Formats: sequence, C-alpha cells, structure tokens
Amino acid sequence: MKRPTIADIAREAGVSKGAVSYALNGQPGVSPATRERILAVADRLNFHADSNARALAGAKARVVGLTLQRPPSTLGIEPFFMELISGVELELSRQSYALLLQMAPSRDEELAFYRRWFSEGRVDGVLVCDVRTGDPRIAVLEELGLPAVVIGPPDVSGRLPSAWSDDAQSMVEAVEYLAALGHRRVARVGGIPELAHTAIRTRAFTEVCARLSLAEAVTAPTDYSGESGARATRRLLTATTRPTAIIYDNDVMAVAGLTVAHELGIAVPSELSIVAWDDSPICRLLHPSLTALTRDIGGYGVAAARMLLAAVAGAPVESAHGAPAHLTPRGSTARHPAS
Amino acid sequence: MKRPTIADIAREAGVSKGAVSYALNGQPGVSPATRERILAVADRLNFHADSNARALAGAKARVVGLTLQRPPSTLGIEPFFMELISGVELELSRQSYALLLQMAPSRDEELAFYRRWFSEGRVDGVLVCDVRTGDPRIAVLEELGLPAVVIGPPDVSGRLPSAWSDDAQSMVEAVEYLAALGHRRVARVGGIPELAHTAIRTRAFTEVCARLSLAEAVTAPTDYSGESGARATRRLLTATTRPTAIIYDNDVMAVAGLTVAHELGIAVPSELSIVAWDDSPICRLLHPSLTALTRDIGGYGVAAARMLLAAVAGAPVESAHGAPAHLTPRGSTARHPAS
Repeated sequence: MKRPTIADIAREAGVSKGAVSYALNGQPGVSPATRERILAVADRLNFHADSNARALAGAKARVVGLTLQRPPSTLGIEPFFMELISGVELELSRQSYALLLQMAPSRDEELAFYRRWFSEGRVDGVLVCDVRTGDPRIAVLEELGLPAVVIGPPDVSGRLPSAWSDDAQSMVEAVEYLAALGHRRVARVGGIPELAHTAIRTRAFTEVCARLSLAEAVTAPTDYSGESGARATRRLLTATTRPTAIIYDNDVMAVAGLTVAHELGIAVPSELSIVAWDDSPICRLLHPSLTALTRDIGGYGVAAARMLLAAVAGAPVESAHGAPAHLTPRGSTARHPAS
Repeated sequence: MKRPTIADIAREAGVSKGAVSYALNGQPGVSPATRERILAVADRLNFHADSNARALAGAKARVVGLTLQRPPSTLGIEPFFMELISGVELELSRQSYALLLQMAPSRDEELAFYRRWFSEGRVDGVLVCDVRTGDPRIAVLEELGLPAVVIGPPDVSGRLPSAWSDDAQSMVEAVEYLAALGHRRVARVGGIPELAHTAIRTRAFTEVCARLSLAEAVTAPTDYSGESGARATRRLLTATTRPTAIIYDNDVMAVAGLTVAHELGIAVPSELSIVAWDDSPICRLLHPSLTALTRDIGGYGVAAARMLLAAVAGAPVESAHGAPAHLTPRGSTARHPAS
C-alpha cells in the first residue's frame, strides 16, 4: 500500500491535479458535482489533506513541540524531565495531542527546528525549557508568532507566558532551615550556571547566606550530572575547611554526593547534612532518606500544556505561578554537632 | 509573522498559485527563469515545502512515531520507558530525527494514529511497544507498508523486524539462583498478563519451577504500578503458606514489595528474598540493595531506532537480539534459613 497522492486522486476521478487541489482546499475552480466526486475518491483512497492544506483551512496539527539542548541520556537520568513530560502528556492526551520531542545539538539547530516546524505547520505550538538570560529562542518565537509557553522564570520569557514558581523563596527556606540547625558553613552544588533559574537560585543563596552571616557560601557549578555532582562534592569535602551542609540543585547529584560522603567516611547526617532540590521517589527510599525541596513537577507539565493548548485555541494566556518547592525534612539533615 | 502560504509566494512573485506549486514540486509547467524567481521568493519568505509536497518529492518527515496505550503517568514512574526513549533519542539525534510521542487511550485510537500519520506523511516510521499476542497493530502496519520496528519478542511481530532479547532465559537464571539458595516456595508478581513478553516470562517461570519441583509457583498479575505490586505482595505474604522469595516483573513493584515486607515485619533478605526485573539506579541505592535482572534498556532503544532508520532508508532489516537480562545478586537475596 502506497501513500495516496493528489495524482492518484486525479487519475481515479478523471480530473487534473489542479482540480483536485482546488477541491481539497475548498477553493473555487471546480463545479460542486466535481468537488463531491473528488472528495469521495480522496476519502475512498484514505487521503488526508497534507499539513499545508490543513493550515490553509485553519486546521491544527494536534502536535506540540519540545526541543532539548541536552545530551539524550538526560532523559533517562533526570527524574525532572520524566515527570515533566509525564505531566505534559497527561494534558495532551486528554485533548488527543502528541508531543514532538527533538534533541538539539546546539542553540542554532534548536532555532532552525522552530522555524521549520512553523513554516511546515508541523506543530501548533511549543514548550520551552532550560531558558537562559537573553535566550534567542524567545525573540524567534515572538517573531514567528508560534504559540509558546516557557517552563521557567517569567523575567526571561519576554512576552511569552511562563509556568513556573518562585525558586528564590524555596532557596531561602532551605538555607534558613540549615542555619536554624546550627550550620555556619553551607555550600551549594548548583546546576548549569547559564540557565536563568540557576542564576535566580545562586542570587538567592548568596543573599540569604550574607544576611545570616554564613561563611563559605560557595556555589560549585555543574552540568547536573551525577558525575559532576560527585566531583564537586569531593572538592568541597576535601578542602581545608569543609562545609557541614550542602544543598544540591537536583536529586541525581544529591544521591551522588551521599555516595561520596560514604566513600570519604563522612557520616550523613551527623557530620554532613544534605538537601536535594526535587524530590523523586529515590529521595524517600535511600538510607538515610534525603531531605528535599518538594514540588509538583508533573503539575507544572499539566499547567504548561494546558496554557499552550489555550494559546493554540487563540485564548489570551497569562503567566501562571505554581506553588514553590517546599522543604521536606528527612534523615539526611541534622543539627550541627558543635551547636 | 504569519506562516507563508503558496498564495503569498504567488503574490510576491507575480505568478499563479499553480505556477508556484509546479516550481516547488519540480514539475514542468513553468520556465526555468520563473522557477528560479519563485524559489528565491519562497526562500526569502522562509517557506518550506509542506509535508505532502516533500512526500511527493520523496523527502522524509525526519520524525519517527511511538504510541503508548498506557496512563501518561507511566512515563514519570517507569524507569524502563524513559531509559528506552533516552536510547531512542540518542540514535535519532545523531541523524537529526525527532520522536513523536502519542499516548493512546485505546487500541483503536492507536491504529487511527498510525493511519493518520501514514496518510499525512507525518512520520517516516514507527516503533511498536507493549505487543500482545495477535496484536492488530502488526497487521495494520504491514498493510500500510509504513516502516516499523517492534520492541518486543519476534514471535508476535509478524513480518516486522523486532529488537529484543530472550526473557525466558533470564527467568530461568533467576529461579535457578533462588532454588540454589534453598528456596522452595517462589512466587512472582508479574506484569500485564496480555503482553507477549509477560506471557513468555510466565511460561518460563511455570516450566522452570515444575522442573525444579518448586511448590507455590504462582504468578500474581498486576498493571506494573507500585500500588498493584504492593497489593499483590500483601496478598502473597499474608497467605497461610507464604513464599520465601518473590520475583517482580519491574523494579517499581520490587521497591513497593520491599516496603510491604518492612510494614509486615518480614525481614529482607533473612525471611524473604526479592528479585527485581530491570535494574534502575534505585535498585543499587536502596537498603538492602536489590538483586536484579540487569539489561541495557537504552541499548535496545538505540538498536531499535537504528533498525528503523535503516528501514526508512529502504535497507533490508533483520530482527536483532540484544543480550538477555542477567542476574546481578545484591543484598535482597539470601539463603533460605531452613536450608
């Protein structure tokens, strides 16, 4: 079985390809009777109007796009993305939409995908993750007028609506909690520094540590991988004055950090407290269980997808803030022994 | 900015829409000079040939499709799928392909997506998961002639190539290991019974238990969720003669089973041995760490995507078997105390 073409329909209906095109696109140029005949043949051959014809007729692709400029292995490693995509799919499947997932090796290729998707009518809108300050994707999406929702902080999302929460508030909660436990040397193993939400967390971390007069308020940058989290932890814990508490920007690195502490014979939580940002099932099941900043990641995915489909339908869409991540104290944090 | 249409190009170039269509599709009917002018305008307007025009010209969508007839939450819960998708994306991104991910509420809708994707030229091929015996998707894909690769056992994949491994061999390895540890009452918390690979595992489990004269070789069916795994474990462990070892068809249920054993005061591994099928990071990090059947799930994804892209390119593609899952003994299995 071959995919039916306009030529097939023209041959079967005994008309020109131009006539088929007119009939399928609802344009004048064929008689009503001929149009009927052509449409009947198209139907019998299981022909569906191609994406350009559908776009002309105002029909939707029923697909939303998501590009990620990360190594493909991120998907299998980062519970964040799995939970986010799971939430996105929950809302998309309710409305019979599919997700087009494209790993992009560079920012330029990411932009090229947006342009191609737009001009070919392949997607009705896009979700944007991992936004950086001055991110060129925002300007390109605004210029194209392709419906888009940013999953990230609103201050870098331009005129696009964003779905996110206040990371600064959560960071303050975590540091104040550690300070209340008597910790004076708190370090952070941060995410990719160029990402806008990492910058927000870094600023909040630096400010709250200064306000509470905590020493050593260093942020070690990483690429979010367990390996980079382990390396950063090893450096922090083998320094002359080591921190007594570490906040990790994701749970994968917190798990790696716990393993490094075991390896160096540093007891958690009696000698080192650990806080993970994002609370996947592994945080609850580890020994000791990990104190974590908990948020409803799937809920962000649902909200972002719902906002995007509303924008696709032509509704005005405002940025929406979910509840910020809140601290869930567990076994990996304790009072500083000297306090 | 509006998506450019053939009408926009026609207006800009001062020609008819028919002439634009001829020029874009490389058909006769316009002079070489006019064709050049039309293509220059199309280029300037950032017009890309729509999917039907590209299909006529033999061009590819550079998208492969994957439908899943599971609750969308599966993606956030089952490490299997995200590791598989991660492997698929690794190969797709190497060839600048995207993945179209569609959750399907029913088998009929799944078939409708295949037909629509085919007739609209939306995907160049599909990956097929969760195959059942007599699965109607196989016949539909064979009929459409849409390139497809089954991620599942070859005996249910019809004429389509499959990428999988021998689950029966792995099941035998797990049961023989438990029998060697002295266990005589071995139970199994199985996956969705209708899936072909579940049936293969069930048959292998029943046969090897019979061969080794093990009693109570029951398989409790589940839907693969942690909740159903916990319920099945509770039933097994509160029966008059409870098993001393349980094999779980995924790691999510094995983790839930470990929690139920704790809840009932049954010590793992001294009173109950636990084996998980599929070895995600959580199995290594739990206390006790879980003995698991380990396989390279990402590798299946890479292999399946590579086979599919070869089929899309028109190459003959044979079914390929990866290495079967092998037993990785850890802290959750021990000798039966009475032996």
